[in-house]
Amino acid sequence: MQTVLRSKTGVEAIISPNHPFTVIGERINPTGRKALAAEMLAGNFERVKADARAQVEAGATVLDVNAGLGVANAHELEPEVMVKAIQAVQEVVDVPLCIDSSVVPALVAGLKAAGGRPLINSVTGEEERLEKVLPLVAEYKCAVIAISNDESGVSADPKVRFEVAKRIVQRAESYGIPREDILIDPLVMPVGAVGGAGKAVLDLVRWVTDELGCNTVCGASNVSFGLPDREAINATFIAMLIAAGMTCAITNPLKLELRKSIMAADMLMGHDEDCMNWLRYATMWATPKIMVLVEPFW
Amino acid sequence: MQTVLRSKTGVEAIISPNHPFTVIGERINPTGRKALAAEMLAGNFERVKADARAQVEAGATVLDVNAGLGVANAHELEPEVMVKAIQAVQEVVDVPLCIDSSVVPALVAGLKAAGGRPLINSVTGEEERLEKVLPLVAEYKCAVIAISNDESGVSADPKVRFEVAKRIVQRAESYGIPREDILIDPLVMPVGAVGGAGKAVLDLVRWVTDELGCNTVCGASNVSFGLPDREAINATFIAMLIAAGMTCAITNPLKLELRKSIMAADMLMGHDEDCMNWLRYATMWATPKIMVLVEPFW
Repeated sequence: MQTVLRSKTGVEAIISPNHPFTVIGERINPTGRKALAAEMLAGNFERVKADARAQVEAGATVLDVNAGLGVANAHELEPEVMVKAIQAVQEVVDVPLCIDSSVVPALVAGLKAAGGRPLINSVTGEEERLEKVLPLVAEYKCAVIAISNDESGVSADPKVRFEVAKRIVQRAESYGIPREDILIDPLVMPVGAVGGAGKAVLDLVRWVTDELGCNTVCGASNVSFGLPDREAINATFIAMLIAAGMTCAITNPLKLELRKSIMAADMLMGHDEDCMNWLRYATMWATPKIMVLVEPFW
Repeated sequence: MQTVLRSKTGVEAIISPNHPFTVIGERINPTGRKALAAEMLAGNFERVKADARAQVEAGATVLDVNAGLGVANAHELEPEVMVKAIQAVQEVVDVPLCIDSSVVPALVAGLKAAGGRPLINSVTGEEERLEKVLPLVAEYKCAVIAISNDESGVSADPKVRFEVAKRIVQRAESYGIPREDILIDPLVMPVGAVGGAGKAVLDLVRWVTDELGCNTVCGASNVSFGLPDREAINATFIAMLIAAGMTCAITNPLKLELRKSIMAADMLMGHDEDCMNWLRYATMWATPKIMVLVEPFW
């Protein structure tokens, strides 16, 4: 079970239970970031470049690129903005990309601009979406994120979501898409609203891994929506997901608590040889404390 | 699968996958605590009482009591010191106890003093230990921690450790001890020395839970031995263990990072109704930050 992504120049990211956890940087997304949306609309991609650099420095090995500007004619503008955002990212970093859009022409434009072997975000179990997105995945021989909801919405019952995931995989195979190129997103709901939301996703990750043989991915931070100390909840949840077999998440590697949790979990899963990564970063994290102690003597 | 412990007066602690995670407070243990050992030897149990209170306030629902003083005639002294320590604890808190000793007469004295339905820590797969400890567990109808090592030591192979656990369970059943009264300790080794140590324990917890139908327990902090930022590693590991099905740990609830991780994991497993526990404690944790902001105005 191994999903291989590639940048334009051939830099690989391998998503697999036998490799360190893959962080897909989520920051290049104007949803809820007004300043970024306005800049992208005006053709200014400096913040996009800065976000790309910072996330890769912080350990992201794939970057999500979303160009949904949330303006009246967003759908028409999106393909062009997507291409420009991708080009801006490619100017500063060389990692595989995750092309994130609900607008099919933006996905097509993104696939052409990205080159290599990107990830498409996303297909769902909805008939219309399946018919539009799966042929693209087959044509471009790329990988795809499959979200386990359909026309009936998101079921609170993990068994129903598992059936949706299964159907998407079968449908994808009918297009010649192998299951190692499908990343299942079990859909994380807020635990503050749905008490069993965390456990449901842990079960789904295990079932998808063991029974479907697919890698799993999620936007983990939704779990803490509306609760205090979200970073602590997210950091705990990501460790639990990794223990359950999750191989990949769309998240913000600039959050220190989350990053530490992912690094520790990687080490505990046996994916940090001689703990070298942990030893290097733990030293860096300790630095600010030393600075505080030294300051009075300057 | 439910292990029921009781204090002398009947206060219950239920260890089960359907209940919040059980923290057994580890602090009442003179090993490596010279001041505590000296005090206990001199008949001063004030620190024992303070530790008992603090751990229960911090969320421990069971307390481990160890009276191994590490002096020349420790074995002779231990039964008497065990009884005094238990009495001191019972004076200030009312929770079930975990009687922790390698000296069998100290276990017997502890069982008599504790009353109720305590936990014995521990039996191993070693023949001599099995023959001495299991009859006690049967006689006192208490519960027992079974450590998955035997005469050949601790295997690095989790499959071997699983076989040892299985053998202890079978042997216990021959004494009429039901498997719900056996807590398997899969033995945590330092990940800095044994690269696969974390993953091995996660696998063992799953196998023991699914195939043996026993609760699991461990001293999780050993995993980070020798590494920097141990608290972060331990907090991540405990969350992963809970996701794998662990129901109980012998640990220090006074460590904030660990306690937060356990509380978040409990909530994410669906064991914190309406997130009430998280909401209450997250507010408390936030307090020091508010005090720092307020200070200049005083």
